[in-house]
Order: sequence, then structure tokens, then C-alpha cells
Amino acid sequence: MPLSLSNGHAVCVSLRNVHITSRFWIGRASAVREGALTAIYQQLKDTGRWDNLKLKWKEGDPQKPHRFWDSDIAKWLEAACYSLIDHPDPALAHLVEEAVDLIRGAQQEDGYLNSYYTVVEPGKRWTNIAWSHEMYCAGHLLEAALAHHEYTHSTRLLGPILSYIEHIKTVFGPDMQQKHGYPGHQCLELALIRAYETTQDSSLLSLASYFVEERGRKQPYDKNSETVERHYYDVEADARGEDAFVGPMRRRGDRFEYMQADKPIQEMANEGIRGHSVRAMYWLTAVAGVARLTGDSGLGDAVRRLWENTTEKRMYVTGGLGAVGEWEGFGPDYFFPNETGYLETCAAVGLVFFAHQMLLLDSFKPIYAEVMERALYNGVLVGMSLDGKGFFYDNPLATVEKDMQRSEWFEVACCPPNFSRLLGSLGKYIYTLTSSDTIYVHLYISSVMELKVSSGRSVKIRQDSDQWKGGSTFTLTGDARDLKRLKLGLRRPAGVHKWEIKVSGVDHSNYSINAAATLLYLAYNTVDASATTLSVTVAYDYTPRILRPHPLDSENHGCIAFAKGPFIYCLESVDNSGIADLRSVRVEPKEDIEECLDVEAFKKWDLQVVTLRTKGSVIREEGVERDVELVLVPYFAWANRGRSDLRVWLPVHRGDGMVNSFASNT
Amino acid sequence: MPLSLSNGHAVCVSLRNVHITSRFWIGRASAVREGALTAIYQQLKDTGRWDNLKLKWKEGDPQKPHRFWDSDIAKWLEAACYSLIDHPDPALAHLVEEAVDLIRGAQQEDGYLNSYYTVVEPGKRWTNIAWSHEMYCAGHLLEAALAHHEYTHSTRLLGPILSYIEHIKTVFGPDMQQKHGYPGHQCLELALIRAYETTQDSSLLSLASYFVEERGRKQPYDKNSETVERHYYDVEADARGEDAFVGPMRRRGDRFEYMQADKPIQEMANEGIRGHSVRAMYWLTAVAGVARLTGDSGLGDAVRRLWENTTEKRMYVTGGLGAVGEWEGFGPDYFFPNETGYLETCAAVGLVFFAHQMLLLDSFKPIYAEVMERALYNGVLVGMSLDGKGFFYDNPLATVEKDMQRSEWFEVACCPPNFSRLLGSLGKYIYTLTSSDTIYVHLYISSVMELKVSSGRSVKIRQDSDQWKGGSTFTLTGDARDLKRLKLGLRRPAGVHKWEIKVSGVDHSNYSINAAATLLYLAYNTVDASATTLSVTVAYDYTPRILRPHPLDSENHGCIAFAKGPFIYCLESVDNSGIADLRSVRVEPKEDIEECLDVEAFKKWDLQVVTLRTKGSVIREEGVERDVELVLVPYFAWANRGRSDLRVWLPVHRGDGMVNSFASNT
Repeated sequence: MPLSLSNGHAVCVSLRNVHITSRFWIGRASAVREGALTAIYQQLKDTGRWDNLKLKWKEGDPQKPHRFWDSDIAKWLEAACYSLIDHPDPALAHLVEEAVDLIRGAQQEDGYLNSYYTVVEPGKRWTNIAWSHEMYCAGHLLEAALAHHEYTHSTRLLGPILSYIEHIKTVFGPDMQQKHGYPGHQCLELALIRAYETTQDSSLLSLASYFVEERGRKQPYDKNSETVERHYYDVEADARGEDAFVGPMRRRGDRFEYMQADKPIQEMANEGIRGHSVRAMYWLTAVAGVARLTGDSGLGDAVRRLWENTTEKRMYVTGGLGAVGEWEGFGPDYFFPNETGYLETCAAVGLVFFAHQMLLLDSFKPIYAEVMERALYNGVLVGMSLDGKGFFYDNPLATVEKDMQRSEWFEVACCPPNFSRLLGSLGKYIYTLTSSDTIYVHLYISSVMELKVSSGRSVKIRQDSDQWKGGSTFTLTGDARDLKRLKLGLRRPAGVHKWEIKVSGVDHSNYSINAAATLLYLAYNTVDASATTLSVTVAYDYTPRILRPHPLDSENHGCIAFAKGPFIYCLESVDNSGIADLRSVRVEPKEDIEECLDVEAFKKWDLQVVTLRTKGSVIREEGVERDVELVLVPYFAWANRGRSDLRVWLPVHRGDGMVNSFASNT
Repeated sequence: MPLSLSNGHAVCVSLRNVHITSRFWIGRASAVREGALTAIYQQLKDTGRWDNLKLKWKEGDPQKPHRFWDSDIAKWLEAACYSLIDHPDPALAHLVEEAVDLIRGAQQEDGYLNSYYTVVEPGKRWTNIAWSHEMYCAGHLLEAALAHHEYTHSTRLLGPILSYIEHIKTVFGPDMQQKHGYPGHQCLELALIRAYETTQDSSLLSLASYFVEERGRKQPYDKNSETVERHYYDVEADARGEDAFVGPMRRRGDRFEYMQADKPIQEMANEGIRGHSVRAMYWLTAVAGVARLTGDSGLGDAVRRLWENTTEKRMYVTGGLGAVGEWEGFGPDYFFPNETGYLETCAAVGLVFFAHQMLLLDSFKPIYAEVMERALYNGVLVGMSLDGKGFFYDNPLATVEKDMQRSEWFEVACCPPNFSRLLGSLGKYIYTLTSSDTIYVHLYISSVMELKVSSGRSVKIRQDSDQWKGGSTFTLTGDARDLKRLKLGLRRPAGVHKWEIKVSGVDHSNYSINAAATLLYLAYNTVDASATTLSVTVAYDYTPRILRPHPLDSENHGCIAFAKGPFIYCLESVDNSGIADLRSVRVEPKEDIEECLDVEAFKKWDLQVVTLRTKGSVIREEGVERDVELVLVPYFAWANRGRSDLRVWLPVHRGDGMVNSFASNT
């Protein structure tokens, strides 16, 4: 058993024991399987990434390898393994084993494993960890190896990768003769935590913990026989005779803020999260994990403060992160530009990881699950087209002149496989379990799951949730003694008015209710003490609702957004063909929004969605207005039906004839 | 006499005949003289630009020259010459002649003159005019030479530069053996027009005209013994074995839209202005000039349409241009992001040039002068600190977290000297004159000016305008026969309620009035036919006024801005110390705005401004509000009194308790 239980923290469930039955999510997963995994593999082949693992590239050859290429293979491999757990596919399985062979073949005798530094810059290993992506690639290889182990139970990949980690452990650490560095692009830290939870090898947790503690600290450094305090990235840059900081935030006088390495995490917690948003999410995921597994309460407090800053002040309404494209990262608090916002798909994926780690750290905080759900259904899901073959890297909340289209691939190819690996492992995020047999329900996704409770026996939970109307039924099957002891933690979804719980076959259940959740002591007093099945029905309503911006959100002053259940809605030109420019739309903030189950709009992809209809008007320069019926679709579904514009926040009509131009500006 | 008069177009006045007496503008010009010219010279020295003209740089030396370095020297030289016309300064004059000597010394035997291609890439002249800045540097050298000629009446610089232009004329042109190219970064075109107006050498106008017509056209090109239509920038890139398009808009699939060379100007006119905004302004300035001087009415119509697109749909309220930082240029129509807008100082400078050329093309369109004034008092003036020693490259309309500070210099150093040369030549922009003796008043700036009218005699105009209250008196002195014939075209300033004109010593004047201007037939019937002085008093009010955004401006929905006379106002933190975050401010759109002549706030710089005071409130997250008195200062004056935030557009209070956050989003 992992340390976590003795600390009272929650544990994660195994993917093998989860089967998603939600029609909505089965559709999304099959798009990954049938679209994305094939499309990404083809790109890995075509761009030379796949075959580069054969280490045959020579100077002058085309397709010069890039430092992060190994990570692209690894992310695809991870996603493919997850997919194979539930959906056997001999052709895909064959490719997976080919990738495993290639990776094994690329490993050097001393355990080192990085195709770029082996073929392009041999002899320069570990000389530039600030920018080399070496540890980032190692992290993704480790995550892929863990997924491969989960899928095959074999150590054919995990073994070699763990020996690569052994090599890294000899190079980096606190000893005098070791390098006191840490990953330039975070990722290895969280992979080490996952590896520790699989292997129980405490040296993996120690290394993760070392990376977390060392990051941003200055170190005594011997320079011209004088000891000075230096940042490790400066130390290694001095050794190369280069300037350490070459990144995109340099213009702002930043030193390593871009990768959250400018100061130790405790100081960072006082100031808020900054820099590159994907790096930040991977980083905080790892910090939360280390805090949980080591019981370091100071670290726990720091990560809680950074969670609050991230989600209360820097998160878009879609769960997207990163207001500033220039450094793909965070802007100031409450700064949410619509058209120019970056909101990288990978950052929303990272926020799901972070929220999940926070749920493991502090189980009963429904807000973590609410953020996770918001990011998943919106900021993440928008990143892939409905057919699984087109991707968005950045996800603004509004466009003008129909200038955004999904791409088949990106030069920096993180988003497509990252999306795929999250969707492939979605089953992990629905529940967590504590040592005192409380099952927390974080996501209302129809599924069947087996959990091993403290007695050592399994309990099966069948969840039937209505994706569009709201409401869930949980059917628990197991030994009567276990059912009697179980507690069910139920999150009250955001914005619901109704919240009623009924337990069948139970005479008297005990509840503990707060505004955001119910903790249900399931079988406190059962009628039939030997019942092996319990049914819990939770009634809640996914009535459409109106969201308003934060008062300091100056981009969206006077606007509202529409939501229903976990979905944020948007206006898309394709559904509102009479409106030439979506910026001319004005809405009324009335609650009588009509719902319509639309089976036609996305029929091509076998997707049914509920669209919203509301009355609005279109304002024109001459001051003339006309009434229109507006059709809104879930944000994630936009940009699948031809070139279109998008708008999430819509201005409320003010009826004061605000019509003007430069020429008549009095 | 230039061609222009015979075409009925207006002519420009000579800087030698203008003396500005406005206290406000004398202050700004002395900041340029005492601050900027010295500061820029020091930077030119320190960065190696100045001494690079000695052509001694060798590979391996520090301070590797850049392709645009010559243009930085040239712009400083131009500004210095303008300053010396009115303000003799032996030390500055000495530096000017040193620069002239250096430039002369850098010229090659065949007339070629570019320090970068002489020392860094010898042998590569004219092989990459798309990106080399070679013609851009030539353009600035020519403008500097014209300024030096205006100041000294000597051809010590103009002579060599015109022989450089002779060299360019042999290389580029329509003949078979010539290169059919045109400047990558526009500038030479407008310089050629100015040179033509000085020298009357029609070959200079022909070259400008050739560049204008050829730009964006595809040419028959012999490739593998097949004739294909190719863009010149592709032709020259093929010859280099490179890809022609490496610029910042590449990601958008653009080919040369960045520098307005993707299509001929007639097609461009159908679609609106795109790409880099400074290049666009220099370009359209030249197109308007060529249209005027050649009488090409098709070209005139194209440039008028592009003027309308630029100023009606793509210009910020401050006269700033360029919504998108990524390519320093235009975004879609009505796209005016506040915090991330680029609004390069040089683009506002370019808009003044463009407006001035439009005034010469179509004299009696007051809107051109209104835009010129708006850009000058706001988008241009904000670019330099009050002491002349600090500069802004980009000029957003709002900031958060006090993250903007003026710089002493920029790697790409266009803005400081560009600002300086415009301010040094401001006298040129106040009036234009037509062949039928109409004097158009474009800017209400106190000054004394001599104009040569059609009789060949001079008329002197003394203008006394009140910068802050509004109202002007024009005293015209000259031969009675001339005064009798003169007409005065008076633009009614934007937003004034009062508009009254009185002419002293005149029994009966004749007026022609439209909404935006008055054309005054001055001395139609004088009492004293021999009067040699006439006084015209124009009463108009610079009462504070409220501006509203265009309905399609989604960034500023529900906001207003404040203006008074030509000045746009802003909220700056330093004057509103009780407000932690300017985004929390709400205003009331009432017209009773209090004015206050503030002699203290900017006393250090001997500047008096009128500040505005209005009632508003500060909203807080908890829903609590408090009333505040807001102090607004002219936009140009912000960022001089320590770190501060800025906000031009301010949300109108709606009183509907729009208080929310992610956590309570129902």
C-alpha cells in the first residue's frame, strides 16, 4: 500500500478496473482511437521522429532531429497503451511494440537514452538542462513505460527506462560530485511520482522531492576562487560560455520565471503563478504529489496557495490557462483577453492533472473536481476535432474574420498526443478512494468501476449519469459488510438548483451536507443487513445558466456567457448564418433559455448535443437593430463544420444607442 | 514651381518660414533638443552605429553591425538638421557635419552607400531587397540629406546621396537588364517624392512611381526554360537558394502581406490595409504623393479607400495603429485590444505623414487634419517622455500590474529619432496652400508663418491659439491686393459646440460652411481697401467630451473615454492613489466634468495641463462599492511620474451588482 493511505490522503484507481459506458465519452475516445492515434503515428513517421530512434541521422541529412522529439513518441506510446487496455487492436499493438524496440535500441550502455544528444550533439549530455528538454523527454518516456506496464504487465519498457532513471540519479542530486540541477521543462518530477506509486521504490520519490526542493534555489558556486550564490542554470551556462537566459520572457528582464525556476516554491506562493502555463501545471502537479507522499505540510500549503491563484484569478471560464501568447503563459490576475488569449490545450490537460493531484492531497474539496470538470469538458475537449484528425494548439474565446482552423500537426507537437493520453486515461479521474472507505465522486460520467476497499475485497460501482439533463444513479455491488461501511462523497455540480439524494434498500441514511457536496454514510442502518446491492439516486438539474465575468475582468465588462452542466456554450457563425459579424450581437440576460437536443448538427460524428436558443439583437453602425434568435453550441464542438467565427462572452444589450465612430466622436 | 499647383493640389510650406510660438509645443521641441537628440547620439555612439560608418568592422569584432544601422544615423541627422534651422547650436552642428563626413566617407566609388553590405556581407548587395533594409536605409539617408540641404543650403550631403540614387536607378527599373524589385521596408518611395519636390528632377518621381506600380505584381520569370509568373521577392530568393518568406506572418500562410507586397495596390484597396503598420503608413504616404504628382486618379482612388479603411476601422481612439504585436501591424476591422495592442510610436508618426499627403492631395477634407491632429497629440506624443530621454515603442491603451516603463533605447531604434524628426518639422503640418490662394489651417498651433502666394509676394500669418480652452486669432499681414484675394479654410475641431468667426476691418466677408469646416473668403469687400493687416477671430470651445466605442469594438463594450480638444485623456494610478487596480473603476457618462489647470503635477518639466475630474466608483469583489473622485490626465503625459498603470476606456457603471467569480458562477 502506498504511503498516502497512512497519511489519510486519497488514492487513485487503476485504469484496468474502469470501463466508461457514457455514450458521449465513448464517442470522444473512439475519435482518439480511430482518428488521432493513426494521424499522430503517421506524422511521427513522416517527420522523421519515429525512425530517428534508430540513431542513424548524420549532419547534412534532412529532417534534423529536435531536442523534444523523443517526448512526442513517448506521448503517443502512452496514449496507445491506454487505448489498448480497453480496446485490443493487433495493428496498434504491433506499432507499440515496434516503438518499444526502437526506444530500447536507442539506449546507451550506461543507461542514457536521448536520441538528440546521441546523434546531433554527442558529448553534450546534461550540459544545458535549462533548455535541452533532456529531462522532459525522460519524464515522458517514464510515463509511457508506466502505461506500457499497466497495459502489458511487462517490464520490457519500464525496465530500461528505470535504468535510465538510475543513470540520472547518479548525475543529479545533492552530493558534492553531483550536478545540482533540475528539469528545464518540468515533467520528469510527476512521472517519478507515478513511478514511485507503481514500484514503491522510495529513491524515485526522493529524486522528485530533490527536484522540487532545489528548483529556484541559488547555490554556493566557486568562481575565480571566490564563493558566490548562483542559479544552477547560470552555473551550467557559464560552463558552456553562454548566456543562460535566451527564452521568450527575456525582454521583460526575467530570469527563469518563464519555467518557474526564478525562486523557490515557498516564495513563488506569495506572488502567484507566472511563466509558461504548461510547465507550471506539470510542476504544480508534481509539487502536490510530493507534498502528499512525503507529508510535507509547508509544501502542501504552498501548492494550495498556488492552486487558488491559478484557478480563482488566472483561469478562463473554459478552464483554459495562459493569457499571453508571447511566452505561452500567465498574464496578470483577471486578465482574460478573448481573441489573443493563448489557452494552450496542453495547459488545460495539465490543469486536469493538477486538480487530480489536489483531490488526492485534500480529498473533500469539491472545487478541485469542479475545476477539473470545467477544464476537461471545455479547455481540453476543444483541442481535438470531432473526427480526431485536427487539433488546436491555442484556444481563444473569440475569433474575428474566421481566421482559425484546426491543424493536422504542429512543429512543436505536444497537444495532439497529450490530448490523446488524457482521454485514454479518463477512467482514472472519476473517483478517488480513501483509507476510511469513502468513495469520492468527482466526475459524473457513466461507467463501471471496481475498487478495492480496506477489507481487501472489491466493490463495484455502476454509475449512470445523464450527460445533458443531469442526475445520476450509483449501483454499488459488493459484500454486505463492505457496503455497510462505505461512504459516498457526492459533489454538487456547479449551478444546479435541485439536489436530492435517495438510497434504495436503506431505511435510514446519514448525510453530511455543505453547500458544494454531500457526504453520504451509505448503509448506516440497512433494512436487509445482507443486501449486496445498493442503489443511490442523485437528482440534480443541468438547467442552462448565465455566467458573469469577474468585476476586474476588463475584457468582458458588460458581457455574459451561457453554460449548461459542465459545458460552456458559444456562438458559432455556422449556426447563426444571418449574422455577418458576431461582434454585432447583443443578448438579454434572461434565464428563459430554450434547450434543444440537436441530433442533426453533429450527426456526421455520431454526436448529439443540446443546443441553446435565446433571443438577442444585432446592432448596426447606422443604429438600426434587428431581433434575432441566437443558437449556441458547446464550446468544445466549435470549428468542426467549416470556417466559422466563435464568441463565448456576449455583450448585454444596453439600449442606449451606443453607436459611434471616429468621425462623429462627440 | 512644382507640378502640384497646376493640378490644383495643395503645396507644403517650407520649414524655414515657420516659427512655432505655442508654449506647449516649444516645451515638447525643447525636450527633443535638450533630451532626445543628445540621448540618441550617445546611443548611436555606444552601440557602435556611429563609428561603423568608418567601415572598419571585421568578423569577430564585437558590436556586429545590423542591416538597418545606417537608417538610425540618418533619422537622428534629419532631426538634428530640423532643430538647427530654428535653434543654432555649435556643438550639435559640429556633430551633424561629422555625421555628414562619415556618410560621405562610407560611399563606394560607384555611388553605393550602405555600411552593412560594405563590411558584413560584401558582394551581396541587392540580393535580398525583401529583407535587407538596403532601400529603407537609402530612403532615410535621402530624407536626412534633404533636411541637411534645407538647414545648410549646401549639397555636401544631398549631392552624394543623389548620386547613390543614380546608382539605384541603374540597378532597378523596368528595363530587361534591370532588377524589377522595390523596397522590402517602404521608405525610399516617400523620400524620392520629397527629393523630387526639392530638385524638380522628374527621374526621381519616375522611380518612386515605378516602385509604387511594381509592388505586389507578379512578373514573367524564366525558370528551367519555362516562363512562369513570379513575385520578385521569390525570384531573388531563388537566386539565393533560400525561402523568400521568413517574416512574422508566415504562420498565417502569408506571402508578403506583412510588407503590403502580396498584391498590387488596386487589389489591396478592395480588401483593406494589412501587415506591418509602419511599413503601411510609409507606403500609403508615398502612394498619395505619387497620385498627386502624376495626377493618376486610379491611384488616388485606391489610396482614398485605404485611408478610409485605416482611419475608420483600424485606428485606435488615440490615432494609434497596429492591434497585433506579433507582426507589429493591423488586425481585423474594429479590433482594438487595450493591453496587448501594439500601437507603435512610428506608426502614429507615419499616420501624420500619410494624413499630410492626403491634405496635399485633397485639400479640403477636414477629416484628414482631424486624424493628423489626433495622432499627433496622442499616439505620437506619448512616445517620448517629458524630459526627452525615455521612449515607448508600443503604446497600449491600458496596463495591468504597472509593467510598462519607458526605455532609453531599443535594439530596433526607430521610434526615438522618428519622433524627434517629426517634432522638429512640426511647422510643416500646420498649413497648406493652394494655387488659388486658399490657406488651409489644419492644426491650431500658435505660430508665425510666411507663405508665398500666387502674386509671388509673401503673406505672414500669426496664429494665436489657446491650447487648452480653444479659440484662435489669425493675424494676416501682407500687401492689400493679396489679402483681398486670400481665402482661409478653417477646420471645425472635433466635438466643439461653439463655432463663431469674426473678421476685423472687414465690412462683409463671405463664408462657405459645412459641418466640419468653414471656408472664409477673407476680404471680399473691405472698408479700407489698402489695409495691410487683417484679424480673424475664431471662437470654439474645448469643453471636455465623452467618446463611445464603435459597436463592433468588442474590447470596449460598455466603456467610455474622455477627451478635451485634441487630447484623449486617461486614468493614471499616480493621480488616483487610493485605487489599487484601475480595472475596478466604474464611471458615470455625465457631461459635467470638472476642469482644472494643473500647474503642479508636471511642474518639473515646465508643463501645464488641464486635468479632468469626474465622479466614479470603485467596485470590489465582495460587492462593496465606494464613490471616488477620478482624476484624468492627457494620455500623452502618462508614465512620467514613476511606475503607474494606465487606462483610457473606462467601464460605465451598470448598478446591477455584477460580482462573481469562478466559484460562484451561477
